[in-house]
Amino acid sequence: MYLIIFISASVILYQYQLSNAWLISQNSQEFHVLSPKTGDKPRSGSLFNASSISNTTPCFQEPEDLLPPLYVITPTYRRPEQLAELTRLSHTLMLVKNVFWIVVEDATNKNHLVAELLKKTGLKHEHLLAPMPELYRKKKGPKPRGVSNRNRGLQWIRQNAKTGVFYFADDDNTYDLQLFTEIRYTKRVSMFPVGLITKLGVSSPIVRNGRFSGFYDGWVAGRKFPVDMAGFAVAVEFLLQRPKALMPFRPGFEEDGFLKSLEPFEPQDIELLASNCTKILVWHTQTKKNEPSQPLDLAKYNSTNLVMLKQILV
Amino acid sequence: MYLIIFISASVILYQYQLSNAWLISQNSQEFHVLSPKTGDKPRSGSLFNASSISNTTPCFQEPEDLLPPLYVITPTYRRPEQLAELTRLSHTLMLVKNVFWIVVEDATNKNHLVAELLKKTGLKHEHLLAPMPELYRKKKGPKPRGVSNRNRGLQWIRQNAKTGVFYFADDDNTYDLQLFTEIRYTKRVSMFPVGLITKLGVSSPIVRNGRFSGFYDGWVAGRKFPVDMAGFAVAVEFLLQRPKALMPFRPGFEEDGFLKSLEPFEPQDIELLASNCTKILVWHTQTKKNEPSQPLDLAKYNSTNLVMLKQILV
Repeated sequence: MYLIIFISASVILYQYQLSNAWLISQNSQEFHVLSPKTGDKPRSGSLFNASSISNTTPCFQEPEDLLPPLYVITPTYRRPEQLAELTRLSHTLMLVKNVFWIVVEDATNKNHLVAELLKKTGLKHEHLLAPMPELYRKKKGPKPRGVSNRNRGLQWIRQNAKTGVFYFADDDNTYDLQLFTEIRYTKRVSMFPVGLITKLGVSSPIVRNGRFSGFYDGWVAGRKFPVDMAGFAVAVEFLLQRPKALMPFRPGFEEDGFLKSLEPFEPQDIELLASNCTKILVWHTQTKKNEPSQPLDLAKYNSTNLVMLKQILV
Repeated sequence: MYLIIFISASVILYQYQLSNAWLISQNSQEFHVLSPKTGDKPRSGSLFNASSISNTTPCFQEPEDLLPPLYVITPTYRRPEQLAELTRLSHTLMLVKNVFWIVVEDATNKNHLVAELLKKTGLKHEHLLAPMPELYRKKKGPKPRGVSNRNRGLQWIRQNAKTGVFYFADDDNTYDLQLFTEIRYTKRVSMFPVGLITKLGVSSPIVRNGRFSGFYDGWVAGRKFPVDMAGFAVAVEFLLQRPKALMPFRPGFEEDGFLKSLEPFEPQDIELLASNCTKILVWHTQTKKNEPSQPLDLAKYNSTNLVMLKQILV
């Protein structure tokens, strides 16, 4: 009899622990900043690959707050394609664990449609403003787009993050989920190929006999680091040890300037990802620009749904 | 004493039921084709909105096989942007429940990179081929792109589906998750606004006093249904009752021709979605075309990672 009671009690206790674990994973909405353990390597297999994040997500996954936090900095600006681009990128990020999305608008006021979109995703996020300085806005020729935004993102990271990794992810690019699994464990600066760059079709570190041996990029222009903005990720601690690191307002030299400002840091220090740079996990997709939409004939359509639609359009 | 045993037993039974429910939802990978109950309406709130599909997915959601199946037909063809576009769309679909992705290549052989991508997503899918007939391929001027593919998708649906809804989703468009929640309950043909179409910036049914009263589209051209391919969804049963419905090989008139082939069906029969067509839940985003990548200098790079990267590039 006592045996039965004992067994029952054990089973109840065990079940209680299970449901408790479930409750914990349910409530892990807060953002935990934890140091990755030394030697902690990207884990392959069922927990992290894309197929495990399908419709039937198992409940008893590793709590995501054990993963190093991933900060994704996305510069954006108002244009007809903006909401579409952010929507699409948000879907990718919604499949990534322990990610914090820093969206920085090149604007003086926050776009409420962007704020609503961010809220709807359920992602942990920060919505910031960083207008391009007048000085550059008035200049003729190519403009240093997204520099204010990215530097504002870096400032936020210096003020709020202690560990983890950050990545500059433009809203029109395309990211394989595997990319986030890999960059999360960056110790200093990791690099990897970016597809759809220049006439070569790809920009990548060159790897010979398993070691870094230069850069392959259609536009070198004397750059020490001829890479694309989407081609590298940086450890937060590495940045914090370099208080002067910043992106310069110099069109075409933003990446190079920023990476050089991370000194001491040499091309030989790069961590090579994407199976020694043999896979493409990110593409520099560019969206065709649309002209602002034509005005609505209010005399004709004043009491229709089109009035509300027009308020959304740029 | 017996009371304690009884309580213990009850608790165990209850816990067993809970974990059983969990196991069922775990194993729902198979595709269940169930009739939606009559009067089954889109349910709003926590189960279906985007924020509930965040990183902390609750375990005890409604089993997805109770939802009407959603068939997404995506025509695609080989080009530098193809893998990126399909990757991005797959992330959106990975957040949709009980979805079946029918990817149809305009090609004579299946691209193994597309097959690998499909497998990696974990989505229920079908990978089909439907090359454009020579007759149209040789013709000068605009070509009926994607028509073979979509008709092949329709053929698959006639052969394999009994209930649910299908939707033509091009790989470069952008879809809000809310769109899939809404179209899933289409009884005949549902329609909704599509952003980034023509100079008007949007194509949409016009709604006046809560009722359909025409179409707003920058290119009417005598079409009975001046709508975009991404602007409507059709119930499978409705299609099955129209054995002759097909898309014509007529550039610019694909949508109109297909919708007219669904007769008996009049514009007044349209089900209006997206809050009476006041919201934009899908955008006709177009990706900037890239030239095929330049050849690799094999004398210079023959023993590097670039050889493997070049095999992926178009």
